[in-house]
Amino acid sequence: MNSSLTPFLKPSGIVIVGASTQPEKLGYGVARNLIQSGYQGAIHFASQKQGELFGRPLYTDLAQVPDPIELAVLVVPNTAMPNAIESCAKRGIHAAIVVSAGFREAGAEGATLEKQCVEVARKNNVRLLGPNCIGIIDTHLPLDTTFLQPPMPAAGGIAFVSHSGAFAAAIIDWARRQGFGFSQIVSLGNQADVNETDVLPAVADDEHTRVIVLYMESVSDGIRFVEAAHEVTQHKPVIALKVGRFESGQKAAASHTGALAASDTAFDAAFAKAGIFRADTAEQMFDWARALEHCPLPSVAPGGAALESATQSKGHNVAVLTNAGGPGVIAADALEVNGLHLAQLSDATLKALSASLPPAAGIHNPVDMLASASPQNYADCLKLLLDDSNVDAVMVILPPPPMFKTEDVADAIIPIIQSSEKPVVVALLGSELTANAFEQFNEAKVVTYPFPERAASALGILARRADQLSRWSSSREAAYRDQATAAMVSIQKKALTRPASADELVAAYGIPTAPIKLARNETEAATIVRELGFPVVMKIASPDILHKSDIGGVLLNIKSEADVQGGYTQLIERAKIAKPNARIEGVHIQRQIEGGQEVIVGVVRDPTFGPLVMFGSGGVEAEGLKDVAFALGPLSPLEAEEMIRKTWAGKKLDGFRNIPAADKAAVQDILIKLSWLTHEHPEIQEIEINPLRALSKGAIAVDVRIKFHQADSV
Amino acid sequence: MNSSLTPFLKPSGIVIVGASTQPEKLGYGVARNLIQSGYQGAIHFASQKQGELFGRPLYTDLAQVPDPIELAVLVVPNTAMPNAIESCAKRGIHAAIVVSAGFREAGAEGATLEKQCVEVARKNNVRLLGPNCIGIIDTHLPLDTTFLQPPMPAAGGIAFVSHSGAFAAAIIDWARRQGFGFSQIVSLGNQADVNETDVLPAVADDEHTRVIVLYMESVSDGIRFVEAAHEVTQHKPVIALKVGRFESGQKAAASHTGALAASDTAFDAAFAKAGIFRADTAEQMFDWARALEHCPLPSVAPGGAALESATQSKGHNVAVLTNAGGPGVIAADALEVNGLHLAQLSDATLKALSASLPPAAGIHNPVDMLASASPQNYADCLKLLLDDSNVDAVMVILPPPPMFKTEDVADAIIPIIQSSEKPVVVALLGSELTANAFEQFNEAKVVTYPFPERAASALGILARRADQLSRWSSSREAAYRDQATAAMVSIQKKALTRPASADELVAAYGIPTAPIKLARNETEAATIVRELGFPVVMKIASPDILHKSDIGGVLLNIKSEADVQGGYTQLIERAKIAKPNARIEGVHIQRQIEGGQEVIVGVVRDPTFGPLVMFGSGGVEAEGLKDVAFALGPLSPLEAEEMIRKTWAGKKLDGFRNIPAADKAAVQDILIKLSWLTHEHPEIQEIEINPLRALSKGAIAVDVRIKFHQADSV
Repeated sequence: MNSSLTPFLKPSGIVIVGASTQPEKLGYGVARNLIQSGYQGAIHFASQKQGELFGRPLYTDLAQVPDPIELAVLVVPNTAMPNAIESCAKRGIHAAIVVSAGFREAGAEGATLEKQCVEVARKNNVRLLGPNCIGIIDTHLPLDTTFLQPPMPAAGGIAFVSHSGAFAAAIIDWARRQGFGFSQIVSLGNQADVNETDVLPAVADDEHTRVIVLYMESVSDGIRFVEAAHEVTQHKPVIALKVGRFESGQKAAASHTGALAASDTAFDAAFAKAGIFRADTAEQMFDWARALEHCPLPSVAPGGAALESATQSKGHNVAVLTNAGGPGVIAADALEVNGLHLAQLSDATLKALSASLPPAAGIHNPVDMLASASPQNYADCLKLLLDDSNVDAVMVILPPPPMFKTEDVADAIIPIIQSSEKPVVVALLGSELTANAFEQFNEAKVVTYPFPERAASALGILARRADQLSRWSSSREAAYRDQATAAMVSIQKKALTRPASADELVAAYGIPTAPIKLARNETEAATIVRELGFPVVMKIASPDILHKSDIGGVLLNIKSEADVQGGYTQLIERAKIAKPNARIEGVHIQRQIEGGQEVIVGVVRDPTFGPLVMFGSGGVEAEGLKDVAFALGPLSPLEAEEMIRKTWAGKKLDGFRNIPAADKAAVQDILIKLSWLTHEHPEIQEIEINPLRALSKGAIAVDVRIKFHQADSV
Repeated sequence: MNSSLTPFLKPSGIVIVGASTQPEKLGYGVARNLIQSGYQGAIHFASQKQGELFGRPLYTDLAQVPDPIELAVLVVPNTAMPNAIESCAKRGIHAAIVVSAGFREAGAEGATLEKQCVEVARKNNVRLLGPNCIGIIDTHLPLDTTFLQPPMPAAGGIAFVSHSGAFAAAIIDWARRQGFGFSQIVSLGNQADVNETDVLPAVADDEHTRVIVLYMESVSDGIRFVEAAHEVTQHKPVIALKVGRFESGQKAAASHTGALAASDTAFDAAFAKAGIFRADTAEQMFDWARALEHCPLPSVAPGGAALESATQSKGHNVAVLTNAGGPGVIAADALEVNGLHLAQLSDATLKALSASLPPAAGIHNPVDMLASASPQNYADCLKLLLDDSNVDAVMVILPPPPMFKTEDVADAIIPIIQSSEKPVVVALLGSELTANAFEQFNEAKVVTYPFPERAASALGILARRADQLSRWSSSREAAYRDQATAAMVSIQKKALTRPASADELVAAYGIPTAPIKLARNETEAATIVRELGFPVVMKIASPDILHKSDIGGVLLNIKSEADVQGGYTQLIERAKIAKPNARIEGVHIQRQIEGGQEVIVGVVRDPTFGPLVMFGSGGVEAEGLKDVAFALGPLSPLEAEEMIRKTWAGKKLDGFRNIPAADKAAVQDILIKLSWLTHEHPEIQEIEINPLRALSKGAIAVDVRIKFHQADSV
């Protein structure tokens, strides 16, 4: 654990500063909860008024508070906070939870006050959680520094880190009737000091935590967050609900890549790189977390399922056991939606099912035992399905059986689920008639969902987690990493002599470009084409005209010297009409590359996460088609491969109908190189090759554009 | 109401045939439920054994049962069913619910028995519901012919029609703790006779039904279903959960259109044409139904929101009122996902909010009143938001307030919501602390959801319903209809003289084609190009080669007579090598159409719903890009317009960057004509124009392919 956070999560003693004897005050609630939580360390109260609270003295001076004491919970008015922090330091306390509000969230004055608190804390070597947070809960230690209505949430294996205290409070109350608990809950508040990147590894370190859920509104330090999270996800799964997906105020972009990267795209890419599963809704986040907490993972193929072929892969084959056809069909649909599919049962299983079920039963997956299914039928068939090596996971569908008690079915299948090495989730349909069974399953740590769709989503995350771990641990990925390293050591960081041409820069990183020359007049143009040979492409050369084809600034397939000279005049004229103030340097002439396929590759530097790499369908339609994939750079070969595979442009590189295949490996290589180029040159804001022409052998950058910071473009 | 269904839904008297005194038998459960339901008509029991049940005699002969009697519930063994149906007819009963199983669902023998039952019923003018169904519930009449565990579900305004009895039973139990009820529930079972198309208008006729939900596994008569449903949706909203989305066994398709139309695409198109809202999950279906049952619709622009600009339209502007920032941001995201957006509050509203809230509160939408918000704050702010004409709907977010009781907030806002003409939904976060408020809201018919995401989805369906009604009733749509009719009267059904050429057929419907001629040898080819002029396109002419470009069977941009003659030989050779057994008729030569944009239009005849029309990006990449939209034919101009707008190919027709605009109206016109052509010629299985070249004025079908039934292609 990050040692500076140990006093927050495992304090030997706690003082509540601003403890109150008035029950309606937060300073009373915090004191009450800490006592009621059963916290085993020392508990002290400090207040401006002398007196007693819960049989303990109220100290009016922090200096009087006896040892041990490692953590302070500050519930004093906002303006008193800087002094309170300083007093903590003097007393030797270097961790403080600032519960009080009235800081950055409350406007400019509060922001100044918050800054002041941070300054005092830094100077005095005190770490702050908050302000404007509800504090920390640890159900196992136990510890509760919040002012929420008791009791504490139930103990469990889910660690919950939340930017929003109110959301955390609501979830705590909601969870009470959902049958799940938490290991630790950390409310981050304004994150004046301690942020999600600090807390994530700390809660992951807790032995009771089996899965971590994050409610995030932003990220404080994107690149460090991705690194820290990636470290955590190697060992424990992390799920995030990141809100603010549709923030407006998108900056104007100089490239297609920039225009296509929505404000939220970088978060998707960052979570992918960090191995964090991104949930769409709060309910889904906890549906996933419960499965990851309690279920074994399905056994997947070495290397994990490839992204696109996931539904055909080992680990994704699910058997559905039901006593009714309808919910079985719902389940079958939902499996597909979640990247899973119905397992093909073995002949032996079919034979055994057939022997133990009535003739009218459906023995093919979904296995429909009919409404008459007994607890014994459920148990027998579940065992058969789990024994089938074609089955990686099972969904048991349990609506109230017409002839039996749901409780009896629960009793019959719980031991089988508990001893199974394969994941089993239960779709428990109903409410009154299934209430007792719901309690039984919760008690037994068997996860249930009210509908097959949610059960399928839970099985889906188990398969994704299994694939993820398998991919990370497999030799294939290791080989890729070596290959990436090998590729990169050959690339030295090239000094940029600005204004180096964009072509020169990418060429320095081993990205082939089509020979291009600048003609400053018609005569030069004629000389150049004699050297390059026909056909050629002519493009207006101006630092002020980015989208050349928009103004008719590109001429293709020029085949004679006369056309070259006429073209020169034409392009200069068009540019002058379209952009009278543009600096015009002349006309670039390039040997026209023929054949192959056009794709686009680009990188835009995200202010939070750094280089965000794009691959997709190129040409002028790139923005319209949106056939693009993004990933955070620098790319590993596997990441580059996955980006290519996600798009139609990438699939087409393998050939389609009468379109011949192109050199996909060359495109992959260029993606990696471009990502490293941008990584190593922080002065580049955006870089784009559009089109990159993928040939039957190799690939050539036909048009390269770079935007530097301060809008300095070549 | 369909009069033959009146005896099912409003019977004057009922006899249960197969009533039993043994509590474990279905024949007991049905009798018990009918009595307990409080049904006011006559109740009679018939059985093989004499005796008494619930104080009534058991008749051993249906002939003895006294009047009034209109409906029989048959719980006799499957093999006794044909006789039982005949006895009903003899007694003058013309409606029978067949509860018993052991029919088609149980295999071949059962299927024969079911057929026999239908024959007996048809001969004797008896209508059958089932077999293998749980019957009918009407909470208002009241009536309960099921054997489910009592009590009956709560009364409400949701009619529920289900193919699956087990699913209906599970939903009934689930609904008990969800706080909603039903008007009528009809379980369809095997649909040997009465099907969803019969039942839909009948339940819609019920005065207590405000919204209808359908759980469907298939449809019996697609075209009649779409017509009947469209009639119903004019008056009451219908939501469907159609399962079996991912059925395998897709037939081999002769066209891109066929290949792209997944087995479920036709259902999407059918629901769209019928005005049915398709839910993704069971939970979503009931989330939507509750909102449609109780909330007023937002006021939308005349004509409704255009599909793609929906988020910017009147009726889609939502105010979010919260006491916590986090859930407010979740709500803001979820609104966007559901085609809604945050309303821009008026200055007057902002001023008034500012006056009634503390300075640190967020007065801009989402309105964050802070954790200290009182019941009075909730009420005051809600009123202000509802009074703002920029606000079309409100989501109130209510996690347990730290300083107040949730119940008190509920009390404060319920009267405001009840008297509001704008829809208000509540995201009630939590469980224990919000349990009482949950009951209060249910009692008051105010809809609540446990998370903002689900509340946003509910508001989304209200806006969609409002748009739908507005579109149907607006003069714009009426004008469109007239226009469509006018366009169509000019089109006579053309007699097809097979094998007419595909070009001749579409030309007969006013679809322009590029002149094309068949050359049967090199000499003829030379003669033809002299007539057509250069450049030309040459294509192999063979009824056995559908995808010509796949075998190199198309030559473009041929500019000389020598090339034409060489091309002829080359194409014939290629065809012979690629398909040695193909019938080769020669080579088609066509004047090459230059400029404009290539799109694809096609129709495939769906076995269930008839002509399924496709529009999208054309050329060889049509299948790969999947930039296509589908709709059920024949198309209205509005439907054609919407298809075009849904795709990138369609948006591009307006022009993009340096791509000039093309004649979108001409494309729309051709889509409509092609849909009518297919509608009027049922012998056409698939027809496809790929590419259709949209020019600056007009559009020309460059390549037309037709597949007739019996694989008779031109």
